[in-house]
Amino acid sequence: MDWKPERNSHLTLQEQIVNWMRSRIERGDWTVGTKIPPQRKLASQLKVNRSTVQQAIEELKADGLLESKVGSGVYVANHSWNALLNKSQPNWKQHIESSIHKPNIHTIQLINEYEQYDDVIRLGTGELSPELLPTKELKQSLQSISLDAKVIGYSSPLGNERLRKILCEYLQKRGIYTFPENILIVSGALQALQLIALGLLEEGSIVFHEDPSYLTSVHPFQSAGMQMISVQRNQHLQETLQSLKKKRQSIFYCIPSLHNPTGINFSVEEKKQLYEVCNALQIPIVEDDVYHELLFDSPTPPIKSFDSSGQVLYIGSVSKTLSPGLRIGWVVGPTQVIQRLADIKMQTDYGSSSFSQEIVAHWLSTELYENHVSWLRHQLKERVAFVEKILEEEFKDIASWNKSAGGFYIWLRFHQPIVNKAFFLKLLNEKVLINPGYIYAANDLHHIRLSYAYASFDELAKGLEILRKISKVSMNRGIEGSE
Amino acid sequence: MDWKPERNSHLTLQEQIVNWMRSRIERGDWTVGTKIPPQRKLASQLKVNRSTVQQAIEELKADGLLESKVGSGVYVANHSWNALLNKSQPNWKQHIESSIHKPNIHTIQLINEYEQYDDVIRLGTGELSPELLPTKELKQSLQSISLDAKVIGYSSPLGNERLRKILCEYLQKRGIYTFPENILIVSGALQALQLIALGLLEEGSIVFHEDPSYLTSVHPFQSAGMQMISVQRNQHLQETLQSLKKKRQSIFYCIPSLHNPTGINFSVEEKKQLYEVCNALQIPIVEDDVYHELLFDSPTPPIKSFDSSGQVLYIGSVSKTLSPGLRIGWVVGPTQVIQRLADIKMQTDYGSSSFSQEIVAHWLSTELYENHVSWLRHQLKERVAFVEKILEEEFKDIASWNKSAGGFYIWLRFHQPIVNKAFFLKLLNEKVLINPGYIYAANDLHHIRLSYAYASFDELAKGLEILRKISKVSMNRGIEGSE
Ligand SMILES: Cc1ncc(COP(=O)(O)O)c(C=O)c1O
Ligand SMILES: Cc1ncc(COP(=O)(O)O)c(C=O)c1O
Repeated sequence: MDWKPERNSHLTLQEQIVNWMRSRIERGDWTVGTKIPPQRKLASQLKVNRSTVQQAIEELKADGLLESKVGSGVYVANHSWNALLNKSQPNWKQHIESSIHKPNIHTIQLINEYEQYDDVIRLGTGELSPELLPTKELKQSLQSISLDAKVIGYSSPLGNERLRKILCEYLQKRGIYTFPENILIVSGALQALQLIALGLLEEGSIVFHEDPSYLTSVHPFQSAGMQMISVQRNQHLQETLQSLKKKRQSIFYCIPSLHNPTGINFSVEEKKQLYEVCNALQIPIVEDDVYHELLFDSPTPPIKSFDSSGQVLYIGSVSKTLSPGLRIGWVVGPTQVIQRLADIKMQTDYGSSSFSQEIVAHWLSTELYENHVSWLRHQLKERVAFVEKILEEEFKDIASWNKSAGGFYIWLRFHQPIVNKAFFLKLLNEKVLINPGYIYAANDLHHIRLSYAYASFDELAKGLEILRKISKVSMNRGIEGSE
Repeated sequence: MDWKPERNSHLTLQEQIVNWMRSRIERGDWTVGTKIPPQRKLASQLKVNRSTVQQAIEELKADGLLESKVGSGVYVANHSWNALLNKSQPNWKQHIESSIHKPNIHTIQLINEYEQYDDVIRLGTGELSPELLPTKELKQSLQSISLDAKVIGYSSPLGNERLRKILCEYLQKRGIYTFPENILIVSGALQALQLIALGLLEEGSIVFHEDPSYLTSVHPFQSAGMQMISVQRNQHLQETLQSLKKKRQSIFYCIPSLHNPTGINFSVEEKKQLYEVCNALQIPIVEDDVYHELLFDSPTPPIKSFDSSGQVLYIGSVSKTLSPGLRIGWVVGPTQVIQRLADIKMQTDYGSSSFSQEIVAHWLSTELYENHVSWLRHQLKERVAFVEKILEEEFKDIASWNKSAGGFYIWLRFHQPIVNKAFFLKLLNEKVLINPGYIYAANDLHHIRLSYAYASFDELAKGLEILRKISKVSMNRGIEGSE
């Protein structure tokens, strides 16, 4: 929102704001049913007093252009259009509501929105702090990347060939022996999941996953009409899967290294067991391995490394280590699967940014990447020590957690089920943004995903203090039964 | 495919190839049903004689690992797996066949594949020739782009704010007055279509389009279960749309400037008429405007410029002017529509490459972009003059066409319906790749989309000569009724 009223106009601030809003509605930027931003937000964006905004809105309400809905906000009125010009306009709201893809749940939409504001302390963000990104080195490296005209044209379906060759060597260190033609470059790991949903599963297929799961917070499979079923990995896994699967298509999605959000790691035996079980039932495994390089101890081999039947689709990404803004990830799998996913990718976006691909190729093929990641692990260790110390000192009476083995997260469990949407909003009101457990497992009111990767040390300290305060209040309320 | 047999190994070339293929099958890279590459292609990639490849394949057939299907090629055998290890593997083929997204039609898959080979003359490619891309300038500009740590993190849902502000100014020159919050940055225009399909239309909605159409060659709407209906823009348009639409949701997709594949341009009156008709029926318009800067004469204002009801979603991209490898485009529309599309984009790939976004911001905000585009128009004019001269001299007896008004394409119409798949394959056999009309309109056997933008002058001359030769043969056959 770029526009601001002018101080030395012949119109009053209120008049300018009324004209501006009216023109937004007239031009169809704000169609019928659009919720206009809250007064406080508008006031701060337009750099005027809240009362000025309020008066402007009252004026437009009187004109029939805006209407209030109790407890919900101010909307462009149903009859606004007729009031203005007697023209028809498409019913976008109905379009949106009846369309195919699921919206993000409201809490996640709020998270996406509030992550943009600088004055918010982000205690949950699954992203490296700006100071942990190799900004300067990335900028420098732009001078070394090779751009030839072939490279900046439309990409080949599988992605930049040089990058795929380099990835073969990189994956070899992880125990995965593969060929460039078995790798598809994607715009981040999330896109890999989207392509798998569209290209390998029929509607009504089952996606088995663990509970809680990152998958609950994004909707690539749900929107494609797949059924999400969470299962426990225990000695009955095989019977469980068999009885749930019946004759339906299914896949098993897992994050064996530094699970998001719990931080849990599979042992080698657990990986082998899962592989055997899925192999017996012919259930393909999607192994999401985006965090393994951030393990403080050496990682164990991925499931893909003992795959001898083309059973495992292996997903990686540089988002958690180098820069999410690059939007580069990869999928490794059997030729026919990779070709299928590539075909859909071509139909979806004609390939990933070739500039990003060149940058990643340069970093992976020099010592830049490895050096950065080992520096990064060190930084994350310091951050985790800082946060765990605060938790030890301040949270023992109200919550429990496991020591972090790496990555970004601590899966903090409050003794009482206080983490509901009201709790999330109360914290937001104090400018602290958390990722509540219920976005990873619908009925979980005990956990938050605490991230020590994003906020600064100061913010972490301050944010945790506010978290502690609000938690205490919620707990006491809970005990008094007053809410 | 990186592997090659070693000349001075103790194993023969054939033995090495057998081992290599066996290991690809064992490791599940080539699963049951995978079609292995043709012998000629393998031989050239492995740098061995074709007979060596053939013998290796025979050996593996004898072992039961491969099997021939008459007239179709060599496949990994059904029982290969049992033959090897007695293990089960997932039935990927069935997964693929029953999944949601439509595959590209075979001709388009072949085009995507053969576009990668350097010795093929590309007469149909919808892409600028490497020599028309500002490779050097792009490389230089990398030094001037501002990278700060915020920018290379996960993007905000709408995309880089600076770029959106710059686009507001850029769009103003096109007669579109909009705000940063009404713009969504996407990974190319194609992704915009994909997001509209997923986010604004229910299954079974109607997508009206012209015939032929770019939309027939990609499947964002078809795969989402929409019904494609082609209509003619004539004086009965309103009744036609009304009677086809009934009570169903629908949109009208159009390319009013330099239509792909026909090159046709709407007059201002035609634009207004379409807007009025769609407005009366409340059918939203998707205006795909990726080519307008390549018009040799000044473009007329887009439909979006007289949209006063939030009826038009306007799509742009830098793929046709600056570099498709950037993968940057935009959609302009009413706030609630843009927010919805942004929400789905976040769920699909968490935003577009921030590096690409910075590069585009830099180019659009300096004189770099405009200078390049005006140079480009000049180059395209020279190319079109060259091609039209050849057509005048060599094709008048067999085909007709309109003079190009800009962009990349001439919609060449052969007097006889010779452009079928056999014709396409015959040309491919001579290493000439065309875009046959039937990928834009299923029953069209008269046209090819001739592109003067990609191949070099020499290639254009040689390719057209081969095209002429093969066309002549096909026409004579047609006349003799011998095929
Ligand atoms: C487990 C897991 N998979 C995938 C992703 C998506 O990563 P990318 O940025 O590569 O799409 C994330 C990041 O949130 C993640 O935590
Ligand atoms: C009419 C039209 N729209 C959209 C596209 C896709 O462009 P982009 O590379 O921006 O996705 C193309 C290119 O083939 C096109 O011709």
